[in-house]
Amino acid sequence: MTARPLVPLIEYEAANDAVRAVYDDIMATRKTDWINNFWKVLAHDPDSLKRTWESVKQVMAPGALDPLTKELVYVAVSVTNGCEYCTYSHTAAARAKGMTDAQLMELLAVVGMANETNRLVNGLRPPVDSAFEPR
Amino acid sequence: MTARPLVPLIEYEAANDAVRAVYDDIMATRKTDWINNFWKVLAHDPDSLKRTWESVKQVMAPGALDPLTKELVYVAVSVTNGCEYCTYSHTAAARAKGMTDAQLMELLAVVGMANETNRLVNGLRPPVDSAFEPR
Amino acid sequence: MTARPLVPLIEYEAANDAVRAVYDDIMATRKTDWINNFWKVLAHDPDSLKRTWESVKQVMAPGALDPLTKELVYVAVSVTNGCEYCTYSHTAAARAKGMTDAQLMELLAVVGMANETNRLVNGLRPPVDSAFEPR
Amino acid sequence: MTARPLVPLIEYEAANDAVRAVYDDIMATRKTDWINNFWKVLAHDPDSLKRTWESVKQVMAPGALDPLTKELVYVAVSVTNGCEYCTYSHTAAARAKGMTDAQLMELLAVVGMANETNRLVNGLRPPVDSAFEPR
Amino acid sequence: MTARPLVPLIEYEAANDAVRAVYDDIMATRKTDWINNFWKVLAHDPDSLKRTWESVKQVMAPGALDPLTKELVYVAVSVTNGCEYCTYSHTAAARAKGMTDAQLMELLAVVGMANETNRLVNGLRPPVDSAFEPR
Amino acid sequence: MTARPLVPLIEYEAANDAVRAVYDDIMATRKTDWINNFWKVLAHDPDSLKRTWESVKQVMAPGALDPLTKELVYVAVSVTNGCEYCTYSHTAAARAKGMTDAQLMELLAVVGMANETNRLVNGLRPPVDSAFEPR
Repeated sequence: MTARPLVPLIEYEAANDAVRAVYDDIMATRKTDWINNFWKVLAHDPDSLKRTWESVKQVMAPGALDPLTKELVYVAVSVTNGCEYCTYSHTAAARAKGMTDAQLMELLAVVGMANETNRLVNGLRPPVDSAFEPR
Repeated sequence: MTARPLVPLIEYEAANDAVRAVYDDIMATRKTDWINNFWKVLAHDPDSLKRTWESVKQVMAPGALDPLTKELVYVAVSVTNGCEYCTYSHTAAARAKGMTDAQLMELLAVVGMANETNRLVNGLRPPVDSAFEPR
Repeated sequence: MTARPLVPLIEYEAANDAVRAVYDDIMATRKTDWINNFWKVLAHDPDSLKRTWESVKQVMAPGALDPLTKELVYVAVSVTNGCEYCTYSHTAAARAKGMTDAQLMELLAVVGMANETNRLVNGLRPPVDSAFEPR
Repeated sequence: MTARPLVPLIEYEAANDAVRAVYDDIMATRKTDWINNFWKVLAHDPDSLKRTWESVKQVMAPGALDPLTKELVYVAVSVTNGCEYCTYSHTAAARAKGMTDAQLMELLAVVGMANETNRLVNGLRPPVDSAFEPR
Repeated sequence: MTARPLVPLIEYEAANDAVRAVYDDIMATRKTDWINNFWKVLAHDPDSLKRTWESVKQVMAPGALDPLTKELVYVAVSVTNGCEYCTYSHTAAARAKGMTDAQLMELLAVVGMANETNRLVNGLRPPVDSAFEPR
Repeated sequence: MTARPLVPLIEYEAANDAVRAVYDDIMATRKTDWINNFWKVLAHDPDSLKRTWESVKQVMAPGALDPLTKELVYVAVSVTNGCEYCTYSHTAAARAKGMTDAQLMELLAVVGMANETNRLVNGLRPPVDSAFEPR
């Protein structure tokens, strides 16, 4: 099994101005001094890098849901999809925002249960109860 | 497109004692007087009904994560998997636990973003940063 | 929600010779006098119709696994993927080959459990035990 | 790519009584003297460990379906979901229950075919035939 | 089965200025005089509406890939995920950009084949050939 | 994490006549002198090897869609499903057919966007617009 990415990592030193501007904003927003590999591969398309970063920044900002809850949801989706990199990176992000081991284990229990009952439903096909209809 | 379930719904009146005992516990736990269709189809296998209900009851109980957060995660997984019944039932459950429209919309924005970046990762295959390695 | 297929159904009477030849083989092989809608939409591409039918016929024939076991596996995959049409058609096919209600319920219990533990694994990422390595 | 799990493995010697009780039951039920890594990571949540093990034990026991058929279904789901650990562990379990190479290859042929036709259906959206409606 | 969306449709007449500005841009960009239901539900979160529309507009614009190829890819993903609404809307969009019936049928044949071989790979786990490693 | 396949690779020298005939056709069709690992594991079932190769050969041949477009679609599906081997092999195949880095990055942007909006749709469940209904 290979660990080589499909395109080479673009390090800060080798990046053009458009990419550096995004890297700078990532580090400033996250109050860190490094860039993780996801952005370094995405940097091969500076428009996509900028659009994706600005979307993530907007979506993950505090709002009606707090940042930790958002990270838990991100982990739940990544685990459901089986994305290894995303599971490691967003579990680390959730821990940095205060997620405990007990919370991680409960999160995964919910994710597992939802994946199970989703399939029981798919196999038995009960009609949606009228009480569940949106108002 | 059909709405008929793969097995008939088992109503309380027609249920055997084992099924009724689970139905009673569902209604008592949820402080409601009705049973939703998911359980009525699952009741064709009383062991599976009992096991699934007791698992859901344990997993969704308050713990290191609060019940609303758990419902949000359940919706996130159901939406990622495209399970229609589960999306309606758990969105209704989340609303009953206080989820606002603004929270629903933010939740879906996070779910959408995670599904997007999961695939950018799948396509570019960046190596997991050592900083993301668990301690 | 619409029930209209993306391309119109091609009925036997309106089919060209290439399509009719496949329809005839489906009915002869299955010992029935009708064609289900899956083939009627696929018939818009006679090459694809012929290739898919011949593949299904070969793959689902008795071999190292018996036909009922193969249908159960087909249902398991269709349920995992959430394919409504496939769930109805292959559940019906499995029943025609002798699947009982009890077998259907146990099948779905296994499918649900596998979907659950797949995600517990995705979230915790245990290394593959050396005892599980193929010889 | 990292092989480190998201939480450390809990070995028997370091396990608390609740975890050891489950480990003991796993070994007794399976007539083995070792515990595979899945349970060692899940052990960080003893309630989840106990619930999951008891569910797996109940679901995979002989019933209306025999244990080998259940393992084949487990492999089919794990392969469809792309779960690497689960594919290795349940393929090993199926081999231990008698699955031959020929059966494995036929199983995967069915899994592949089902995944293909599921998508042909998703793209063409034929209506469910009335003959497939449950009684 | 219900067709009611989880939040009500927001029509142009009832929309606030932020939503109307996006609706206007959608109609101007697409040279149409109507808004499809996807945007009318997303409009419950004007920020999400604006961000998603601007992302779609940027990503689907002519570039290194032509617009029809992009629509074919969009259909391929939607079909793989089993998203009904997306399959209808993007198949219609692809037809509007010139997709023929023959192209649709070939597209689905490729999608089906890829979904099949993806699972044969998942089940057999061949190592990545060194010749496939990126330069 | 292991890289060992579930069944051993069957090299040309060790292959029987039926397998060699397929290997020869693969090399002749692709104008290469080597066989990639996918076929070497699939060769454990010569019928499945032959059927799959002939299907791939037919489906990927030039037709209403050109071969590069078909490879792009294959990559899109493989990325959506998270199939590592398939992503490497079909990205390599697409590059061999002329895909540029810019095209790869745009392709992944479309794949990411489709995966995102598929889930926004799954969560909000807008009804299919009548204008999207097939004629």
